Amino acid sequence: MKLLTNREGKKFFYKGQDLHTKYGFVKKSDIEKAKPGDKVKTQLGKEFTVLPALFIDKLAKMKRAPQIIPLKDVGLIIAETGLEPNWKIVDAGAGSGALCCHLANLVPKGKVYTYDIRDDHLAVAQANIKFFGFKNITAKKLSIYDKIPHKNIDLITLDVPEPWLALENAFKALKPGGFIVSYSPCMPQVSDFVEAVKKIDGLSYIKTIELIQREWEVIGRKQRPKTQQMGHSGFISFVRKI
Amino acid sequence: MKLLTNREGKKFFYKGQDLHTKYGFVKKSDIEKAKPGDKVKTQLGKEFTVLPALFIDKLAKMKRAPQIIPLKDVGLIIAETGLEPNWKIVDAGAGSGALCCHLANLVPKGKVYTYDIRDDHLAVAQANIKFFGFKNITAKKLSIYDKIPHKNIDLITLDVPEPWLALENAFKALKPGGFIVSYSPCMPQVSDFVEAVKKIDGLSYIKTIELIQREWEVIGRKQRPKTQQMGHSGFISFVRKI
Amino acid sequence: MKLLTNREGKKFFYKGQDLHTKYGFVKKSDIEKAKPGDKVKTQLGKEFTVLPALFIDKLAKMKRAPQIIPLKDVGLIIAETGLEPNWKIVDAGAGSGALCCHLANLVPKGKVYTYDIRDDHLAVAQANIKFFGFKNITAKKLSIYDKIPHKNIDLITLDVPEPWLALENAFKALKPGGFIVSYSPCMPQVSDFVEAVKKIDGLSYIKTIELIQREWEVIGRKQRPKTQQMGHSGFISFVRKI
Amino acid sequence: MKLLTNREGKKFFYKGQDLHTKYGFVKKSDIEKAKPGDKVKTQLGKEFTVLPALFIDKLAKMKRAPQIIPLKDVGLIIAETGLEPNWKIVDAGAGSGALCCHLANLVPKGKVYTYDIRDDHLAVAQANIKFFGFKNITAKKLSIYDKIPHKNIDLITLDVPEPWLALENAFKALKPGGFIVSYSPCMPQVSDFVEAVKKIDGLSYIKTIELIQREWEVIGRKQRPKTQQMGHSGFISFVRKI
Repeated sequence: MKLLTNREGKKFFYKGQDLHTKYGFVKKSDIEKAKPGDKVKTQLGKEFTVLPALFIDKLAKMKRAPQIIPLKDVGLIIAETGLEPNWKIVDAGAGSGALCCHLANLVPKGKVYTYDIRDDHLAVAQANIKFFGFKNITAKKLSIYDKIPHKNIDLITLDVPEPWLALENAFKALKPGGFIVSYSPCMPQVSDFVEAVKKIDGLSYIKTIELIQREWEVIGRKQRPKTQQMGHSGFISFVRKI
Repeated sequence: MKLLTNREGKKFFYKGQDLHTKYGFVKKSDIEKAKPGDKVKTQLGKEFTVLPALFIDKLAKMKRAPQIIPLKDVGLIIAETGLEPNWKIVDAGAGSGALCCHLANLVPKGKVYTYDIRDDHLAVAQANIKFFGFKNITAKKLSIYDKIPHKNIDLITLDVPEPWLALENAFKALKPGGFIVSYSPCMPQVSDFVEAVKKIDGLSYIKTIELIQREWEVIGRKQRPKTQQMGHSGFISFVRKI
Repeated sequence: MKLLTNREGKKFFYKGQDLHTKYGFVKKSDIEKAKPGDKVKTQLGKEFTVLPALFIDKLAKMKRAPQIIPLKDVGLIIAETGLEPNWKIVDAGAGSGALCCHLANLVPKGKVYTYDIRDDHLAVAQANIKFFGFKNITAKKLSIYDKIPHKNIDLITLDVPEPWLALENAFKALKPGGFIVSYSPCMPQVSDFVEAVKKIDGLSYIKTIELIQREWEVIGRKQRPKTQQMGHSGFISFVRKI
Repeated sequence: MKLLTNREGKKFFYKGQDLHTKYGFVKKSDIEKAKPGDKVKTQLGKEFTVLPALFIDKLAKMKRAPQIIPLKDVGLIIAETGLEPNWKIVDAGAGSGALCCHLANLVPKGKVYTYDIRDDHLAVAQANIKFFGFKNITAKKLSIYDKIPHKNIDLITLDVPEPWLALENAFKALKPGGFIVSYSPCMPQVSDFVEAVKKIDGLSYIKTIELIQREWEVIGRKQRPKTQQMGHSGFISFVRKI
């Protein structure tokens, strides 16, 4: 997939036909001929660079129905579990599918099963999975509180209101050494989850982390954190089957 | 590779012979027979669970000569660039090799070239790469201020004192759409880097982020951020070739 | 001064005449008769409680021309210097007068001289000082880069673009043991100020602090930091004459 | 009270006799003669500057039995309530007396009543109050869960394990418009306190804040947050009687 970008950083995805922008249109044939890094022009003379559309570019174009998990938190889950390319992962709830697409992108030899109980969320998630073109994701309607129909799972990510209700199922589905990562916005959810973990022989509670992200302005001598920042997303708890 | 863990979370790597611990020893033959999740005992009756040694387990056993980049920052680099499994990556300086091993773990169809100018750092990095067993890393002595001997690189990670000195080389080595990520502990380094980026036609400065990590205690009603926290690691700046 | 408040926390200042609100009006005579804590009603039957107007209530009604320093930072200045009730203070620039009013409120036996070079800021500051009724503040047009026409000052607060230009004057005006507190939004300002301090024999640089404020939602089980937070106000540097 | 300081920032309190330091001793008569800012020398020729001992200097010499509230939090309490010099304040538990001394310093025309149930804490608090020389503090053994024997109080500060148990008493003791500020390290304490506040007609819950303090290193180009920082002290909840 190709995209066109201009000097201001605006991005337009090429969809197999003339690309119309507010700066004029670029002809299909020009885009087809262009190699990555080549310049093309609209009929009004405005220049664009043709680039391959990477995962991160597509991510910015995803549909977002429920609030999606921020990149800082996606990254923490990947780094703290040491995600491996052949992992089998269960992800619930699917939400918009952002987390499952991120994980699928990094497990080309693995598999992601993503579940949600809401039809509207699933529809958005499935549209996004199709947009990315991932073949290693299965998205289905299922309550993981009822069952997790898998064995030997490496990682289970929980972004559900009552993650403790999924713990017994998660434990049975996990491979020894596998991880459960639970993502909750509120502290009582974290506490109830951690207390439930401690009651299950064979699960080891590792830690709970929140990341505060500060974006900086760096413009000449104007070097300072931005005035408005995201104040909170969620607390992330890590658990392991031993 | 196998490891043995006990209920207290202590981990011992099996190295092909009887495993001696302060709780007694476990016989080689018992470990060889054990499948993941099986229990084995020392001659003193202390029980261990046998687990496969995952990437994250090996990471905890890495040699650490120079200070290593924390997981929160590794995760941010992976998530904000949307790292893909076939990427070719240049990483400098190698330091202890933690970042290059993390990246190599996630690009099974790609390649990581890691460079350092210090023999002692390179020796530690190479020992760690060998410990992990990665085949897709090349570690060499080279100053990226002098040259970056590659083309069509997807990602260049800079953890060097004067990252702006590597910018021209990085620009040439990058694929259109590729990323430069610079990691610096101090604000003047960030500022000098960002100003240098802005002078290069074809590079687009995206943003600079710092992550403040707060680990929480969650023990019954004791729900609070820990008293001691890491106060700072580095500022992470993202740049893209357009 | 009296104010009327309702159950929703709305506050109305009594200005010596019938008080008109969107809930109807309260008669002057009813308000005059009321003691603190008494209830009064509008002609429409809506109930208000009569309270004395405290400093903090008036603060919320201040005019705000330039951006004012947040309470967390005002508090840090007061607490870290151990402000005493008889202190003589120089404050520049006056801005909206928020900081000088806060300080004046706490030095009933002392004095605050507040200076600004902008007529429009001074006008706002003077209107606010009059609103509060402080007798221990003098507000004048003056550039402290040119001179600080005082001796034996206990505290000098600097909220100016180039605080290092005021350092020699500040040093001369200060009492031995007195404090300079500089408030700057950007890091290069902090650095230039600190380097200048270090060059003056007789000034001791203590430290630079930034406070990140997180307001929490605490509503039943919804216990979490608010999603939107102020990301940054300023860096506060403390210096002392020895 | 006088103190002697040297160029390295070491401080020694003068106690009415020859002052012995590791740099030699300074004669009583020399110190008595010296005015603020004058230099005196030890018999070994080491120079000290004589300064008046300010509140903040004495604070650094306080005895600290229980953990004391950090200055950032003291400042927030002062600034968010708009503390006025004639306020009558109830403070419990006294702990080491740091908060009550800070408040007493700023209410020269007011009064602070500080209470604790532990004899050992009270003894430390009383020793500290005597050291500062405050005449406007009364420190006594009393459980505020049982009673608060005052009327028309402007501010009640609670640093106790179960602040909700003191709410009814606090409500009765408060003046209309007066504040309750509760300081708790753990989130369930905050939640239980806030829920109890909401049940009392006549109390208005304002907000809960935590302050994250970051101290910066500013040494030439080394401009960065310090590596080790205090991670957490407490959550501060503000309530007002309406």
